[in-house]
Amino acid sequence: MENIQCLSDLKIKAETKILLFVMDGLGGLPGPHGLTELETAHTPNLDDLAAQGASGLMDPVRRGITPGSGPGHLGLFGYNPYTFFIGRGALEAAGIGFDLQKIDVAMRFNFCTLDADGTITDRRAGRISSELNEKLVEKMRAVSIPGIEIFVETVKEHRGIAVFRKEGLKGNLKDTDPQKLGVPPLQPETSDKGVSQEIAGIAERWLSHIYEILRNESPANGILTRGWCNYPEIPTYQDLFGLDPACIALYPMYRGLSKFAGMKVYIEGIKDFATKIEVLKDVWNDHDYFFFHYKHTDSAGEDSDFKRKVACIEEVDKALPDILALKPDVIAVTGDHSTPAVYGAHSWHPVPIVMTGKYVRPDSVKTFGETAAVSGGLGRFEARFLINELLASSGKITKFGA
Amino acid sequence: MENIQCLSDLKIKAETKILLFVMDGLGGLPGPHGLTELETAHTPNLDDLAAQGASGLMDPVRRGITPGSGPGHLGLFGYNPYTFFIGRGALEAAGIGFDLQKIDVAMRFNFCTLDADGTITDRRAGRISSELNEKLVEKMRAVSIPGIEIFVETVKEHRGIAVFRKEGLKGNLKDTDPQKLGVPPLQPETSDKGVSQEIAGIAERWLSHIYEILRNESPANGILTRGWCNYPEIPTYQDLFGLDPACIALYPMYRGLSKFAGMKVYIEGIKDFATKIEVLKDVWNDHDYFFFHYKHTDSAGEDSDFKRKVACIEEVDKALPDILALKPDVIAVTGDHSTPAVYGAHSWHPVPIVMTGKYVRPDSVKTFGETAAVSGGLGRFEARFLINELLASSGKITKFGA
Repeated sequence: MENIQCLSDLKIKAETKILLFVMDGLGGLPGPHGLTELETAHTPNLDDLAAQGASGLMDPVRRGITPGSGPGHLGLFGYNPYTFFIGRGALEAAGIGFDLQKIDVAMRFNFCTLDADGTITDRRAGRISSELNEKLVEKMRAVSIPGIEIFVETVKEHRGIAVFRKEGLKGNLKDTDPQKLGVPPLQPETSDKGVSQEIAGIAERWLSHIYEILRNESPANGILTRGWCNYPEIPTYQDLFGLDPACIALYPMYRGLSKFAGMKVYIEGIKDFATKIEVLKDVWNDHDYFFFHYKHTDSAGEDSDFKRKVACIEEVDKALPDILALKPDVIAVTGDHSTPAVYGAHSWHPVPIVMTGKYVRPDSVKTFGETAAVSGGLGRFEARFLINELLASSGKITKFGA
Repeated sequence: MENIQCLSDLKIKAETKILLFVMDGLGGLPGPHGLTELETAHTPNLDDLAAQGASGLMDPVRRGITPGSGPGHLGLFGYNPYTFFIGRGALEAAGIGFDLQKIDVAMRFNFCTLDADGTITDRRAGRISSELNEKLVEKMRAVSIPGIEIFVETVKEHRGIAVFRKEGLKGNLKDTDPQKLGVPPLQPETSDKGVSQEIAGIAERWLSHIYEILRNESPANGILTRGWCNYPEIPTYQDLFGLDPACIALYPMYRGLSKFAGMKVYIEGIKDFATKIEVLKDVWNDHDYFFFHYKHTDSAGEDSDFKRKVACIEEVDKALPDILALKPDVIAVTGDHSTPAVYGAHSWHPVPIVMTGKYVRPDSVKTFGETAAVSGGLGRFEARFLINELLASSGKITKFGA
């Protein structure tokens, strides 16, 4: 049985609050002085947490696997990233903050270049600018099909999404992107024999109009579609755990994923780290689980900026007392994956985690850092089991068996 | 989904080299002075690796399970020993260096003693000598069946193998060894209703000839067969990971297993540890993954010879700089299981591992040993996940999900 289902069977009500504080890409590798970003940063407050509580290391998905943001956050939320799949269309829609509905079929597309006989000569249309993309998307919006709502949105450069909204529409079409040059785009075909018949017909009709509209454009005179999918069917936190969860995050991708998990997503008034904390305080009485996301650690890591990542961690540390003043019953501070500045990208290294709470068993670790966390009481585990620790420590699951 | 399949989906090309250095039966238990063989040995070079890289402990198959050489190496290579099964016939054939082909059916047999009415009085024919075994095998080779190639080979003492070679032959026959005395050998029956019909008929015919030939021998006047199986159908390293792997090992069993996994097995010129290193150097440019096997640690452990096992480990340590001079991008030094000298046999204790590479996150461990490895950054894990660490650290798998 899936772990979350085991937990779900044990759920009970408890007047406690869980705070999951995620510093994106927190984990690192040693920099010039032999210490990681987190070990280099001056973090008296995080170290206090480590001294009081339990530390450990989490593999976001599985040992050795570098997660994208989708699987990384699914794991953090307790979903097995290999079982609960979020289609690329839905993920991309979430990523630009598109308010995907349960009846939607979403897909992503690339603008491409076709030659006179319709074969693909550039799968990304020379990576056109976002501005040109927006102009083309505006034209594409003119295509309508009776009885169905269609949305076309720019993502960035040559990338976009389209969403088809109609009650009962089911979609798992095959990509029309053949992944190679010198052949024409593929026809949109069902991958599930029959279930997607309706959307396959709609897609074919819509695409023929789109090709017509883009015919005289250059270099983007066609599109290649991928990741046709429905609204992700993952069980929500309400249904699974009886929680009333909130998401406080600035980036659309995390907000989208949180929505799929059933979290109430707060956007209003969030501009930066400081306003995020204000919103957290404002809604503190309204929920019992809070996913609080801090992005800049990841961006600094991606930019290979060791110093900036250190500074970001210190920014969080300074704000921590203000957050702890809310007195969460259980708080976990961790990342969704590692983004070591010396590596300059998401990596597979396990992420340090520290957790405190009245019933969290303390260990001998006194500082928050990758090396220290190896000796932590939480040990090394896959992120999808973090929810077990959070629910247990907050009294939100009961005994298994008599 | 099987772990190796998850990895396979993420495989990418990288100009890097992985060296897996296996000291057979490396793990130990404390000897007279309270330290294990590895902790007793003077190993400045292995300690250097530990100080630079990450340590940990691997359960060869699963916590508490003592592996034979087959499951032990399957795990090391990334195959779940409970999913990927290698029949005893094939394993034994590999063990004596028989060049098993994909169309072969192999089985192992014991010489036994039958009384006048054909019931078994000794299932091992008094453990006859290998010399007598060879003489009997020579006689058995006289049995031929039209349209099929048959090989009979001595293994050791009362043990042998037979291999049946014919296109399309499928074999999963039941043992003819009834595992008890006072009854006759069983008939070779199919265990898969029909698929093995042909080999069942062949086996019956062949066995009746063999009984005829051995009738007047003493004490070995019969055979009992076991582990009838085809060439192991395990996916190869080429197919799974796009690797071009090499095996440098002296013992037939490891060479056979490596062949099943798709490794190019080097034999020419290998006589001892020193020549093995020379071959490693010779073929270093031709492959991207190297399985290098050192046997004597295990033999010393099996002989309960603590001192000799210590000396073996020191022999490896001395040679290490010569091997490291090849500059593998990732190196892991470990064992396939423990063979503590004080236990005198394969055991279930986890094996220490040390791993270094540009992107291997260091830990606080400074020496290579069982006790120190407990605090290692790799943690404690099942051997089949080692391949995840090796592929990730060498850049041979990409990100999972967007």
